[in-house]
Amino acid sequence: MLGLLVDDIVQRALAEDLSGGDVTTEACIEKRAEAMAYGAARSAIVACGIDVARRAFALVDPTVVFEPLSRDGDDVEAGSPLFCVKGSARSILMAERTALNLIQRMSGISTTTRKYVEAVPADCQTRITDTRKTTPGLRMLERYAVRTGGGHNHRENLGSAILIKDNHIAACGGIEQAITRARSRAPHTSRIECEVDSLAQLDQALAAGADIVLLDNMDTETVKAAVLRAKGKALTEASGGITLARVTELSRAGVDLISVGALTHSVTAADIGLDFS
Amino acid sequence: MLGLLVDDIVQRALAEDLSGGDVTTEACIEKRAEAMAYGAARSAIVACGIDVARRAFALVDPTVVFEPLSRDGDDVEAGSPLFCVKGSARSILMAERTALNLIQRMSGISTTTRKYVEAVPADCQTRITDTRKTTPGLRMLERYAVRTGGGHNHRENLGSAILIKDNHIAACGGIEQAITRARSRAPHTSRIECEVDSLAQLDQALAAGADIVLLDNMDTETVKAAVLRAKGKALTEASGGITLARVTELSRAGVDLISVGALTHSVTAADIGLDFS
Amino acid sequence: MLGLLVDDIVQRALAEDLSGGDVTTEACIEKRAEAMAYGAARSAIVACGIDVARRAFALVDPTVVFEPLSRDGDDVEAGSPLFCVKGSARSILMAERTALNLIQRMSGISTTTRKYVEAVPADCQTRITDTRKTTPGLRMLERYAVRTGGGHNHRENLGSAILIKDNHIAACGGIEQAITRARSRAPHTSRIECEVDSLAQLDQALAAGADIVLLDNMDTETVKAAVLRAKGKALTEASGGITLARVTELSRAGVDLISVGALTHSVTAADIGLDFS
Amino acid sequence: MLGLLVDDIVQRALAEDLSGGDVTTEACIEKRAEAMAYGAARSAIVACGIDVARRAFALVDPTVVFEPLSRDGDDVEAGSPLFCVKGSARSILMAERTALNLIQRMSGISTTTRKYVEAVPADCQTRITDTRKTTPGLRMLERYAVRTGGGHNHRENLGSAILIKDNHIAACGGIEQAITRARSRAPHTSRIECEVDSLAQLDQALAAGADIVLLDNMDTETVKAAVLRAKGKALTEASGGITLARVTELSRAGVDLISVGALTHSVTAADIGLDFS
Amino acid sequence: MLGLLVDDIVQRALAEDLSGGDVTTEACIEKRAEAMAYGAARSAIVACGIDVARRAFALVDPTVVFEPLSRDGDDVEAGSPLFCVKGSARSILMAERTALNLIQRMSGISTTTRKYVEAVPADCQTRITDTRKTTPGLRMLERYAVRTGGGHNHRENLGSAILIKDNHIAACGGIEQAITRARSRAPHTSRIECEVDSLAQLDQALAAGADIVLLDNMDTETVKAAVLRAKGKALTEASGGITLARVTELSRAGVDLISVGALTHSVTAADIGLDFS
Amino acid sequence: MLGLLVDDIVQRALAEDLSGGDVTTEACIEKRAEAMAYGAARSAIVACGIDVARRAFALVDPTVVFEPLSRDGDDVEAGSPLFCVKGSARSILMAERTALNLIQRMSGISTTTRKYVEAVPADCQTRITDTRKTTPGLRMLERYAVRTGGGHNHRENLGSAILIKDNHIAACGGIEQAITRARSRAPHTSRIECEVDSLAQLDQALAAGADIVLLDNMDTETVKAAVLRAKGKALTEASGGITLARVTELSRAGVDLISVGALTHSVTAADIGLDFS
Repeated sequence: MLGLLVDDIVQRALAEDLSGGDVTTEACIEKRAEAMAYGAARSAIVACGIDVARRAFALVDPTVVFEPLSRDGDDVEAGSPLFCVKGSARSILMAERTALNLIQRMSGISTTTRKYVEAVPADCQTRITDTRKTTPGLRMLERYAVRTGGGHNHRENLGSAILIKDNHIAACGGIEQAITRARSRAPHTSRIECEVDSLAQLDQALAAGADIVLLDNMDTETVKAAVLRAKGKALTEASGGITLARVTELSRAGVDLISVGALTHSVTAADIGLDFS
Repeated sequence: MLGLLVDDIVQRALAEDLSGGDVTTEACIEKRAEAMAYGAARSAIVACGIDVARRAFALVDPTVVFEPLSRDGDDVEAGSPLFCVKGSARSILMAERTALNLIQRMSGISTTTRKYVEAVPADCQTRITDTRKTTPGLRMLERYAVRTGGGHNHRENLGSAILIKDNHIAACGGIEQAITRARSRAPHTSRIECEVDSLAQLDQALAAGADIVLLDNMDTETVKAAVLRAKGKALTEASGGITLARVTELSRAGVDLISVGALTHSVTAADIGLDFS
Repeated sequence: MLGLLVDDIVQRALAEDLSGGDVTTEACIEKRAEAMAYGAARSAIVACGIDVARRAFALVDPTVVFEPLSRDGDDVEAGSPLFCVKGSARSILMAERTALNLIQRMSGISTTTRKYVEAVPADCQTRITDTRKTTPGLRMLERYAVRTGGGHNHRENLGSAILIKDNHIAACGGIEQAITRARSRAPHTSRIECEVDSLAQLDQALAAGADIVLLDNMDTETVKAAVLRAKGKALTEASGGITLARVTELSRAGVDLISVGALTHSVTAADIGLDFS
Repeated sequence: MLGLLVDDIVQRALAEDLSGGDVTTEACIEKRAEAMAYGAARSAIVACGIDVARRAFALVDPTVVFEPLSRDGDDVEAGSPLFCVKGSARSILMAERTALNLIQRMSGISTTTRKYVEAVPADCQTRITDTRKTTPGLRMLERYAVRTGGGHNHRENLGSAILIKDNHIAACGGIEQAITRARSRAPHTSRIECEVDSLAQLDQALAAGADIVLLDNMDTETVKAAVLRAKGKALTEASGGITLARVTELSRAGVDLISVGALTHSVTAADIGLDFS
Repeated sequence: MLGLLVDDIVQRALAEDLSGGDVTTEACIEKRAEAMAYGAARSAIVACGIDVARRAFALVDPTVVFEPLSRDGDDVEAGSPLFCVKGSARSILMAERTALNLIQRMSGISTTTRKYVEAVPADCQTRITDTRKTTPGLRMLERYAVRTGGGHNHRENLGSAILIKDNHIAACGGIEQAITRARSRAPHTSRIECEVDSLAQLDQALAAGADIVLLDNMDTETVKAAVLRAKGKALTEASGGITLARVTELSRAGVDLISVGALTHSVTAADIGLDFS
Repeated sequence: MLGLLVDDIVQRALAEDLSGGDVTTEACIEKRAEAMAYGAARSAIVACGIDVARRAFALVDPTVVFEPLSRDGDDVEAGSPLFCVKGSARSILMAERTALNLIQRMSGISTTTRKYVEAVPADCQTRITDTRKTTPGLRMLERYAVRTGGGHNHRENLGSAILIKDNHIAACGGIEQAITRARSRAPHTSRIECEVDSLAQLDQALAAGADIVLLDNMDTETVKAAVLRAKGKALTEASGGITLARVTELSRAGVDLISVGALTHSVTAADIGLDFS
């Protein structure tokens, strides 16, 4: 992630919380008071966002010393430290909430992603991917957290690859026309992915030369059949109503990709606190 | 909410998704094609963010006609429409994901908040409030969603009111000193809230003249005792490990406020889709 | 004050003055020329904004060495140095005006504030506070300058506390209704302040449970009467047409607070210059 | 003034005051309540900034109807209306302070400027000009207010024209060298102005071909002598310690320009209020 | 192109030119003067950017009426009108240069692109594409101009697709390793493109499963050989030292794509003026 | 150039290219891999923008070491190094294109400018100047590049000096009126420049006291005559259809200034590459 884009997000978050200063801290804590504190996991998590937390402290006060004690992607036990901060007590208290809000969200995503990734049987090649159902303004951080948890990213945004959905098909008058148009106008660096709702649509997409087929909301039996037909012709992606149990099932069915909106649209924050010592 | 601040958030979200255009839509959909679509709840929700969704479509294309069909705060049944959009098919497809990402998150918060609010027995006055554990960059929208669900807002940020936490107390050398300092320096418009971990601390805070006491991670029996002691002297706020079941219990114990970080730090997106007709 | 928000203000100021470079300095001064200069008070002032001036030089050129020679809040005699800068002559000349414009304004406010604060007799507890009549874009700096001069801040902005004015009262149909509504919807961290124009209104506000009453444009006799009635029930704030003479009088009358719009809406810049040596 | 740059200033001001909403207004005023109010001068002023005030209301709520009742530059009597606003009571109350803060400052500047302009005897051609001692972030508005009061603008910023000061002279090793360098490198569209502290320096500047001489802190007799020597060779500008009385005297002495830092560095806000009807 | 991103570019351009107003126009033209003017090509061009020019006028003054008289992509003869503007003379003069700077650059790109596209023989399928050698800050407009001229876009930026260059190959220890790594980590929506400098490298890339091979700076004979080897296995892209003559030659050699940095890094502005009537 | 304004431009450019990361580099290059590379001219150029390139690397990664090997304004032979970068291979690859896009454009301008400057015979004083036909968003960099190539800058923007064009003349009812108005309202620091199309107009402009006359699209004979008439009264600037050959001719004709739009509106990028070692 480009540091200046991370900083842009962190600065906005700090401004939200500190545009009027911190009246409690300024009233209660001496300007010169020093403190040391540990960021620690309160339950087992996959750590993510340590460097983002570092920027929150640094952007409040560049003299605060931040020492990372875990790395992004580490499996961290409950009670384990993620980082240590040392310096002005005022600065640490002012940055605390923003740093935690960011690292809790990112670690929440990487922790959940890892569960999905681990639900793929060891002998399957299936990838878990995110979607564009990310938190407005935080897509960059959330895609990074998915990668940190062992997942893969889907296309970054509407400009980076072709994904033909039902509405595009309807507007073009059919799958073949949609794929043909897309092929003729898209950047040559983009594969053509096409959403299909049935095996009949699948056959049309394969015939029209789709590189990837998105099997939308199909039951596992249908997915199995689809995978067989697509073999050697196109990658297959399953999507819609994905649970951990279905990940195993769908992986066994042979899909290449399973995309999971919930990774980013319904985040459970990882439980991380800042303990002063 | 100030419209220009809402627009600032929506514009950032649109830029994330559309900085490279929408290559699929531009390839497949004719420039002049028109469409109509309904934003609809796929499960029962408390609607929130309809006007924010409206801005997403308007900022992509001011000629798209947006008709709200529910109001923020309405209990909406599964299958019920929230809004209708009509106009350029390209514009609607380009704005769709951003509009949904926003309204799903906001409605998710208001739906969950209402559950907490409804867990307060009818004969109790207890308020459900949010915390500062909001999504970086979206605090304004999320506080609004909490209000929409029937909750109340806690202080907006570190500059708007005094809340003395354990670290402030430690740094000041005790609760009395912390409250005295805060009183002497805080804006007179702010009440003084003080976190306490035990009944002993509670007594100190009351003696020092705290206006509100934050009962942190206390069991229900202790909360009951605390409420009795604080009666007529200070408001009581319960916090930490709040579940729906505990909301009922704590309300019965007589606390004035229950603050729930999960309302905003662990959002489950409301299931809302856009159906083209 | 959060450094990154200060920098945001200083950067805008520098961009105003330097978007086209400094054609005189670039023409006349060699790139490598070095200089040393003192920022000095030309009349007696309360210093304020030394760190803000420092940022102006640093943001033009991080290699300029800035040494503070006074501290914010110091009473500084005419002729006394506030800071010393040493480094590239070009950089110092380019930053000079912006640094001075900021420190002159801030020191002007703190100097005037101290006069008001010192007009409060030693045996009175009355606070001098600012208002929201600040310079657009500079509220953060100006509130800091008021504190530096010994004053207190009123609420930061419209979102941080309740202040019911005559128009709110009229719209609600009376003081009691206004206070009741405010109490039921405001964050619990905010006290309820209510403006009153007469003793009759004061009685209504007290009866309705106002925490603070704003005595608007009352003569000193009426203020005295109001203070007596409010004693033990609400804080009293005097406002409107405040002069130094009236500060003494009103303090003796026992008001808790005197708010002075002129502190920030009609600033007299402190006379500070930059002397090259 | 370019509207989008004005809006940028107004939006920042609104964000300062409304980032947390307006908790009082939202609690007390019904969403649908309508109101009408007049912006009125409370003492005699030269109106300035009516369109800027209009933008404050429009940026809060484009449906508020704003009717200007005076024009920028008008002499307005105490009690006279400047504008009328009609529409949502909430919106008007939310925009009120920002609109007033801006128009009070701008009208304050134009009112003071007119006094200086009127101190120039009718038979003199002397121009009153501003300086770069403007409020950081508001230079555009303040230069406009100076013009509105009948003054002229000095150079916009360090990039728009040459003004050689004592430090430039010292660094170049003399007036002649400084002017020669400036002439050889400056844009041909810029005249060369040179500050002089004595008649001896004046002679050097004239000999070196200065187009304008800045007579810095000279007494009136010296100014008279300087004007005589400069006649037909360069424009003369008086600066430093300018009072209304000295304006008349210096104008009679024949200077072409008098620049007055106090026009913008020490503004007295014009007394303007918003009266609801 | 997303309108709000276009506006962002146009606003920056206007601010560059108008931050200090337009002193000539404000001095010479009456506020109420009206004017009408035609934007006209002074030589034969492919029009591009008419809507961007429209925004320049609208952002200076929304009351200016803008009528497009050509469409983006039209072949326009010398002397033909592109658009007509009517309204405030001041506003038109203030927006003129910014509007022309934008439309001249965009039309310059589309005009040059069309020449390259027309150099491809009618019986060849070869695409002309742009590169990432675009003007900093204007990539969106320039990619649009390339499409308008009949060209295709290459990948939008470093995040949207895989393109393995010599340095990546060196760092990975060979083409096979580089392609394998890229395949395992890239979004599945991206094809894998690999730069090759020789037929030996080409064979390695094909063996490793590259989807596209970038034939860098090869002579036409080598390109012919490469095309034969790649046939049915990968798309071929020629790049480096492309002239109009070589486009024809390379197209005949059968390459699928020719990428041309000069389309955007060395733009010749189209000659377009604004004629007042 | 003010560093923070340069950084603003560089940051936008980096965000364009890296908002989605660099998927190739992240896939192929180890996080800890180090590299060293030289920025080198591939043909003879006048170097410009070395410090801007430095900022591109620094803003991606402050730990990259950048060593300048030439200075802006140097005549650099083909093959000569301009700078060396050393550090994280990932960071260097990510910043490469943005750094090159900027330095190629700037060096292209300075290289072309020097050709125009050298076309002025050694015994002539004629200045080559730019115009306002700059790339939107990059005016500051381009004006600097013109100075680096030995040219001079024309007025920075519409606010910094008076330039009366044909449309202003038409709107005022004649040259005399236009110049008179401009004189009475313009900042006294600005000279008055007036465009003339004929010797008759020239005489009017001189009679009205123009300080500079812009001889628009005149043939060389007419320019000669104009120069004679203007001698001692006004500077002369030639403009319109300027080629290298005409520069020599017009310089000999005695014009003071030749302004060349093509310096910035039709840039040929200097050929500069980054060679890894």
